[in-house]
Amino acid sequence: MSEITKFAKSLKYDANGLIPVIVQDYKDNQVLMLAYMNSKAVELTLKTRKATFWSRSRKKFWVKGETSGNIQKVKEVSYDCDKDALLVKAVQVGGAACHTGYRSCFFTKISSAGKHTVCGKRVFNPKDIYK
Amino acid sequence: MSEITKFAKSLKYDANGLIPVIVQDYKDNQVLMLAYMNSKAVELTLKTRKATFWSRSRKKFWVKGETSGNIQKVKEVSYDCDKDALLVKAVQVGGAACHTGYRSCFFTKISSAGKHTVCGKRVFNPKDIYK
Repeated sequence: MSEITKFAKSLKYDANGLIPVIVQDYKDNQVLMLAYMNSKAVELTLKTRKATFWSRSRKKFWVKGETSGNIQKVKEVSYDCDKDALLVKAVQVGGAACHTGYRSCFFTKISSAGKHTVCGKRVFNPKDIYK
Repeated sequence: MSEITKFAKSLKYDANGLIPVIVQDYKDNQVLMLAYMNSKAVELTLKTRKATFWSRSRKKFWVKGETSGNIQKVKEVSYDCDKDALLVKAVQVGGAACHTGYRSCFFTKISSAGKHTVCGKRVFNPKDIYK
């Protein structure tokens, strides 16, 4: 068994066999998105250096950017003290991680008064990408 | 119903009523930890501006820092495009978010060769904090 397989098997997964993964921009540390990997996706990410998740809605492997071309080139992978979460630092090709065209999926702030504020601008128009 | 209660109820929670929450340092954007909130914890965090989670192991509310004094002063709360993850930017009192004494819970990198590398130094010795 390879070291990577051993590592992937050593992580703590939830009842569905998934672990949450934070993707952060390698250069400026902006958090881009949160998605999930299963054990095989962890291995694939480390082997291919392309962020690869398990799509909970489509129930299949999801190489981020396979549709849009906006892949995430993996620079660093870290795990947390409990081994139940991963942090991936990546270069986001195309500049936007979110399917809505925003750089980060976390583009709306909520204040303590309940006010919603959209931050940032769209990098692309989703209609131009997903046809 | 307050705007904050409406917001908390509008989020998508998992089968256990929880949503993953990324905590990021307000100043330098380092990712400090990932934990979980239920609807009430989301409300409490927004109302008190102290990061408040649901402890899955202890099955109770967990005001981060209630034991160690290292609370997280909440500066910004954002939600993602699917409304199934939150991002909290906070000032980490005491300088370390991790119970091991490291600044971030994500203090170990894993390479594609399976090599584990500890990054950063301990801010405190856990034995001095948790007695």
